[in-house]
Amino acid sequence: MLDVDLVITNATLATMDADIPAPYGLIEQGAVMIKGGSIIWLGQMQDMPEFDVLATPLHDAKGQLVTPGLIDCHTHILFSGNRATEFEQRLNGVSYQQIAQQGGGIASTVRATREADVETLFVLGKERLSSLLREGVTTVESKSGYGLDCENEIKLLTVNQLLNENHPVDVQSTFLGAHALPPEYKERADDYITLVCEEMLPQVAKQQLAVAVDVFCENVGFSYEQTKRVFTKAKQLGLKIKCHAEQLSNQHGSELVAEFGGLSADHIEYLDEQGVIAMAKAGTTAVVLPGAFYFLRETQQPPIDLLRKHQVPMAIASDFNPGTAPLCSLRLMLNMACTLFKMTPLETLQGVTVNAAKALGLSDRGVLKVGMRADIAAWQVEHPAQLSYQFGVSDLSNLWISGKLINYS
Amino acid sequence: MLDVDLVITNATLATMDADIPAPYGLIEQGAVMIKGGSIIWLGQMQDMPEFDVLATPLHDAKGQLVTPGLIDCHTHILFSGNRATEFEQRLNGVSYQQIAQQGGGIASTVRATREADVETLFVLGKERLSSLLREGVTTVESKSGYGLDCENEIKLLTVNQLLNENHPVDVQSTFLGAHALPPEYKERADDYITLVCEEMLPQVAKQQLAVAVDVFCENVGFSYEQTKRVFTKAKQLGLKIKCHAEQLSNQHGSELVAEFGGLSADHIEYLDEQGVIAMAKAGTTAVVLPGAFYFLRETQQPPIDLLRKHQVPMAIASDFNPGTAPLCSLRLMLNMACTLFKMTPLETLQGVTVNAAKALGLSDRGVLKVGMRADIAAWQVEHPAQLSYQFGVSDLSNLWISGKLINYS
Ligand SMILES: [Zn+2]
Ligand SMILES: [Zn+2]
Repeated sequence: MLDVDLVITNATLATMDADIPAPYGLIEQGAVMIKGGSIIWLGQMQDMPEFDVLATPLHDAKGQLVTPGLIDCHTHILFSGNRATEFEQRLNGVSYQQIAQQGGGIASTVRATREADVETLFVLGKERLSSLLREGVTTVESKSGYGLDCENEIKLLTVNQLLNENHPVDVQSTFLGAHALPPEYKERADDYITLVCEEMLPQVAKQQLAVAVDVFCENVGFSYEQTKRVFTKAKQLGLKIKCHAEQLSNQHGSELVAEFGGLSADHIEYLDEQGVIAMAKAGTTAVVLPGAFYFLRETQQPPIDLLRKHQVPMAIASDFNPGTAPLCSLRLMLNMACTLFKMTPLETLQGVTVNAAKALGLSDRGVLKVGMRADIAAWQVEHPAQLSYQFGVSDLSNLWISGKLINYS
Repeated sequence: MLDVDLVITNATLATMDADIPAPYGLIEQGAVMIKGGSIIWLGQMQDMPEFDVLATPLHDAKGQLVTPGLIDCHTHILFSGNRATEFEQRLNGVSYQQIAQQGGGIASTVRATREADVETLFVLGKERLSSLLREGVTTVESKSGYGLDCENEIKLLTVNQLLNENHPVDVQSTFLGAHALPPEYKERADDYITLVCEEMLPQVAKQQLAVAVDVFCENVGFSYEQTKRVFTKAKQLGLKIKCHAEQLSNQHGSELVAEFGGLSADHIEYLDEQGVIAMAKAGTTAVVLPGAFYFLRETQQPPIDLLRKHQVPMAIASDFNPGTAPLCSLRLMLNMACTLFKMTPLETLQGVTVNAAKALGLSDRGVLKVGMRADIAAWQVEHPAQLSYQFGVSDLSNLWISGKLINYS
């Protein structure tokens, strides 16, 4: 008889497993068996192997939909300060330029984040992770990028580590030292990139504070050449590569990620077919961020049809950040990806499960399958499309992380 | 000494009271005294009248922002069935026409709602009210309109009554019999309007099941003349008047509401200056519904500048419904009104407090002021603009309805 910690029975399983031919890898009247935090069996109830029914905890899903725990693969949850009054000023007609002159914009977030201690940032991070958890999110990528000096970038990555250890959500840490130019390096971007490559990156790698390295490659950010310097160093140090690419213009950052065999190119509104082909060849994931698109009132859409044509995996993330996407909700992004980008509910659910795992280089989650982490969400919905269609009514009914039932309320 | 049930101290009060000159009617270091469910005193802490400090429950707001409870003045929370698969079909290229031929669209919601019993609809309504309550919403307008025959419209209004009695949120019931043409009246819209006026409305009025009457006046809904018939009867019966107007075209429904001295014209993307002036003269409130605008990917914006120019009060609501706004969140609407309609955070907060109360004809709420209901929300935010700027991080810290502390988790 199988030795099992928990059996979830009577579930409609949206496994998201491409090997199962039904859409969403759907298995009706399914069951999942969990042992040691992993899925050890999964299939139709009628095929369940024998186990000790009296000694094993059972969870009757009562026909509910059961999916992999959701994955938010691109966030900036670690920041202090508040840009609400700036938001108000802009809507009252004050220009971006005036706000920047007052010390507003990203500079104000950097200032507040540098001033904040580890404890403050930890509490803020915890609240934001808990908000995502309540939506069924079990893995969150968290970027540094509001420290912009050695000490403060390390501080942020240390908070990621603390959050990972002290919050049920699994936190994947990304180093984004090349997020913006700090004020003390004004008009010396190349020098700042030298700091990132020669001081920050070696420390991050040595202390194992991040899995991946990200750069904001943009005409208002860092250039293709500067991005390449960071990626070259990151690769030498064995770190994975991601990029904020083609958000406002085509800088060919996505091709660069592909060239380096990187994990993902994110935003990609201005990505062209050449870039899509490069990503397809390299197996790089396209991460679309509809929250930033919405909040910035953008009109240039990411090339969804080209990504489909060349079979580039598409992920979706919240991009939660104080400047361009103050929307701490992954569930809302499912609806926005459908509504704003005309992605299908199947694509959006893949985008926050199997493809989000790909964007993070994680092969142990994002799919319900034997051997995977038992990160599992049960939903009070009848059809997986409902997760993208309806927003705001709390429909999460149970959540397990590594097989452990989570209290997320 | 003042006899008090509860004193909220150390609060930053966004009273929304136009008589207080600061934006948001802000009072720093304020206090609110509550007795018998109403506000009996409000002002700066230093001016508090004497009360029995030892015998009175105190709530220290610790400097937090305190606002009136939010009001969602336009919703369709009472429906059964699910349009998620239809949503999926559309994103997979199936046309509206094909879906309608399959019996989809509003017809499917009407079918499911007619089949649902009172208990089922009550449970669904309760879940939706609770979702809004968790966002700090203390009053919700709820329309009928998916019954479309005498028995089922009455059933829905009865559920409103049950919800009002059994849920902490105050439910304001609106009769929307003229929401759509039921299948059995195909091509007989005038006859259906006769049914609405001669059978439904008298029963609704007699049984006091609704405060107000609404009509979907549109080229794909009911005509100006048909709308006028309903309003004429409603007025005779002493019911208040509202209208779904100028959403997809200008049918002059808003002018008609104004002519009848009605409460509000809702949607109003195609409203022109003539209509705005009529509303201004009549004191009719403009209710904008950014969720439907977003979900339908509309581009025609409501005439916010004209409404400002003629000082028409603007309210904001969720319009939560299964067809055109499956977004059960009023807080999201604050952000959407700013982002999509460029309203200011002050206007959006007025839109879900003082002006939403106006849209419902309620003079006892929406403002923190002596004599008003003690519907009060305390927020873990520093500035009222934050309520519109940030979304998704749970920032409600306490909620009172008629002075009673509510458990909303
Ligand atoms: Zn980002
Ligand atoms: Zn409506």
